[in-house]
Amino acid sequence: MLNKLRRFQGENNAEQGNPLEPVKIGLLGLGTVGCGVVNVLARNRREIERRAGRGMRIVCAAARDLQRPRNCNLQGTRLTQHGQEVVDDPEVQIVLELIGGIDPAREWVLRAIDQGKHVVTANKALIALHGNEIFELAQAHGVTVAFEAAVGGGIPIIKVIRESLAGNTIEWLAGIINGTGNFILTEMRDKQRDFKAVLAEAQRLGYAEADPTFDVEGIDAAHKLTILASIAFGIPLRFAQVYTEGITRITQTDVTNAAELGYRIKHLGIARRQPKGIELRVHPTLLPQRRLLANVDGVMNAVLVRGDAVGSTLYYGPGAGAEPTASAVVADLVDVARELTVDPHNRVPHLAFQPDALADIPVLPINQAISGYYLHLNVVDRPGVLADITHILGEHGISIEAVLQPQSEEEMAAVSIVILTAPVREARMNDAQRAIEQLASVTHPLTRIRVESLK
Amino acid sequence: MLNKLRRFQGENNAEQGNPLEPVKIGLLGLGTVGCGVVNVLARNRREIERRAGRGMRIVCAAARDLQRPRNCNLQGTRLTQHGQEVVDDPEVQIVLELIGGIDPAREWVLRAIDQGKHVVTANKALIALHGNEIFELAQAHGVTVAFEAAVGGGIPIIKVIRESLAGNTIEWLAGIINGTGNFILTEMRDKQRDFKAVLAEAQRLGYAEADPTFDVEGIDAAHKLTILASIAFGIPLRFAQVYTEGITRITQTDVTNAAELGYRIKHLGIARRQPKGIELRVHPTLLPQRRLLANVDGVMNAVLVRGDAVGSTLYYGPGAGAEPTASAVVADLVDVARELTVDPHNRVPHLAFQPDALADIPVLPINQAISGYYLHLNVVDRPGVLADITHILGEHGISIEAVLQPQSEEEMAAVSIVILTAPVREARMNDAQRAIEQLASVTHPLTRIRVESLK
Repeated sequence: MLNKLRRFQGENNAEQGNPLEPVKIGLLGLGTVGCGVVNVLARNRREIERRAGRGMRIVCAAARDLQRPRNCNLQGTRLTQHGQEVVDDPEVQIVLELIGGIDPAREWVLRAIDQGKHVVTANKALIALHGNEIFELAQAHGVTVAFEAAVGGGIPIIKVIRESLAGNTIEWLAGIINGTGNFILTEMRDKQRDFKAVLAEAQRLGYAEADPTFDVEGIDAAHKLTILASIAFGIPLRFAQVYTEGITRITQTDVTNAAELGYRIKHLGIARRQPKGIELRVHPTLLPQRRLLANVDGVMNAVLVRGDAVGSTLYYGPGAGAEPTASAVVADLVDVARELTVDPHNRVPHLAFQPDALADIPVLPINQAISGYYLHLNVVDRPGVLADITHILGEHGISIEAVLQPQSEEEMAAVSIVILTAPVREARMNDAQRAIEQLASVTHPLTRIRVESLK
Repeated sequence: MLNKLRRFQGENNAEQGNPLEPVKIGLLGLGTVGCGVVNVLARNRREIERRAGRGMRIVCAAARDLQRPRNCNLQGTRLTQHGQEVVDDPEVQIVLELIGGIDPAREWVLRAIDQGKHVVTANKALIALHGNEIFELAQAHGVTVAFEAAVGGGIPIIKVIRESLAGNTIEWLAGIINGTGNFILTEMRDKQRDFKAVLAEAQRLGYAEADPTFDVEGIDAAHKLTILASIAFGIPLRFAQVYTEGITRITQTDVTNAAELGYRIKHLGIARRQPKGIELRVHPTLLPQRRLLANVDGVMNAVLVRGDAVGSTLYYGPGAGAEPTASAVVADLVDVARELTVDPHNRVPHLAFQPDALADIPVLPINQAISGYYLHLNVVDRPGVLADITHILGEHGISIEAVLQPQSEEEMAAVSIVILTAPVREARMNDAQRAIEQLASVTHPLTRIRVESLK
């Protein structure tokens, strides 16, 4: 507490009209994003100083391999291979963590906080998994941990939800928050190619990692959704409770059928308030094609947020890349620099809501989520099959919104049936699906993709 | 200066852990938006307190007619017919100005600042026309004047440009920032109706005023563009220098021709950096129909901002209405409440850039703006006419991107020619147009609408 008070008052000399010293930053990580930040700070030095009223100086930086050629100018920055030296440097006021992953990022961030230093990070996994611990320690030490770059790359979605929508009860949000997955789904539609072929191309173009699991299985999106839900609803970070489904099983046929029905398939993260708790889910989703969100293509990201006062608002931009991420990082650096003279109790809270005001609203199990369904069935071609299926749906109280019977390209005896249902609680759909799959005329397990109208 | 210091230190007791008192607000204006704010503050009281760490209380409010039935609960709020009483009330910490127009809004806002009170306003005309004077006085008194609700209704575009894009050199921005105009253009396209018929419908629905001049002539959009350009480029507010053109002369034929060429007509406000100055212009614009901005329909607003680091980002939402505007107002109230303990020199500057760092970049005359052009000509139907026209364009160094010859519905001797040009400086197009209109075969003055690709 004493330490905190001293920092707050120590910086507090602008009052007397003295020009403020440049803020001194210690950088962890000199990869693509690290170099992007160095470049943006250099190129836009004057614009940033005109806004912030003071300069930003990276006084030291750590990278594992100092010999590697880098695409940024590090003159005037002390370099080291030991992250700890950056954290411990007494000159450093803000530690900028851009190494990613959990270890040693977590250790260094906690150590920086312990020393009363502010932290800026782009690390979504670290915040989603260890944010509760990190923010608690930051609170105790009166420092800020800023993480705008952790979600949506250059889109300022954290600040928007945390500050600009502060007058709203957030009802739901839905986002395309993984550029790789969106690129793959866009290519599957535009070029009529299959998942595997497009993934290989994405890897060749550098949009997808050699191990694409985090992207295509929705884990990366689940990290980001965890963070968005927390600041939207004022609940602790609960990554383990996010229902997560990837896009690996989406076929070219599903994409075509969806288009024929007037929909597009997007990999969405959805967080929605229900009376008894909150839905938290990442999965492929059919969206009406006239929605703006359905038209967010390629590696772009977008988040649609519904507040009770503002209605629906959408935020769109590049979700990754060195300079878009640097844009978010620099915004955080400027914010934290301004906060150096704010008493800690009166800053914008880390998770949007005051730490003692976080709510214990439960995350609902996925079978309590409500959505429409796209069902794709392969059936034996004989009279009465469709009647059997619609009868089962009717028995379970599930309304049908559209039926499509595409030409089958496979064996002549089997045909496809595509059904679009009205919104229903997932548990009920599970029961209906079990009954449908027991019909002798249904030849394969059915394909099921959720449908959202997001009006 | 003394007064300022006292306020800053006077509020500064959160340090000791004392719970903060509710912020005391004086409200000027109890119209649609005023009541919207009262309702949102009441309905979301708990969510707002959970975020802000303190309550918001409207202690007094002024309206011309206190007897008028209102759709909000004003129990516990002292009411008066005299705005000055609200401004002068010693209990009031923040004056919330929601009366609109210049007089008496300007007088009351300046008076509040003179008394060391913070101001929140939704008044775009006031800020665009008198912002320079208002912010100078606010700076001298160490108070904040917040105006998120002045542009884009519920879209947090002011904060986004001012804080979230602080790391960027803003290259350009383009926005649909008048809902009425966008509603009219959308209806003209969707229902194939003419401007006048749609305007009458918009007036019936309450989307357009009885006197629609401010909306359809682009004055309202020019107010908003003035503000956006100032915070994007760090220049003083220069409303008088905005080139402004309305949508009243757009015909059903233009809308149809644009669609046939793969474009949509939108009424845009555009601010763009050129080497020698800044373009500031409001006018109807053809946009490629695949752009998200081209798909923003009805009364919705959206602003596309291009930063050198982040690339293109888009912000979309309801541009008007009681509760969307209230959403922006409450965000400002929470921000100002937090700033009560920040030393004035270290707050976010009103116009995004520090007052002593505003730049004197000139606004360019409209003939220095660069854009493509849609030209619609009526010509006598005889050989060589098109060749004459394209020859003149060629002589002026203007490239042609597409030519369309729609069926003429008028006299048989005259036909229509539609030409889409590549981007060119407007002065050059003016010369070419004069030459074309002197051709004997051109029967009417031509229609000219700017084209932007906004990539």
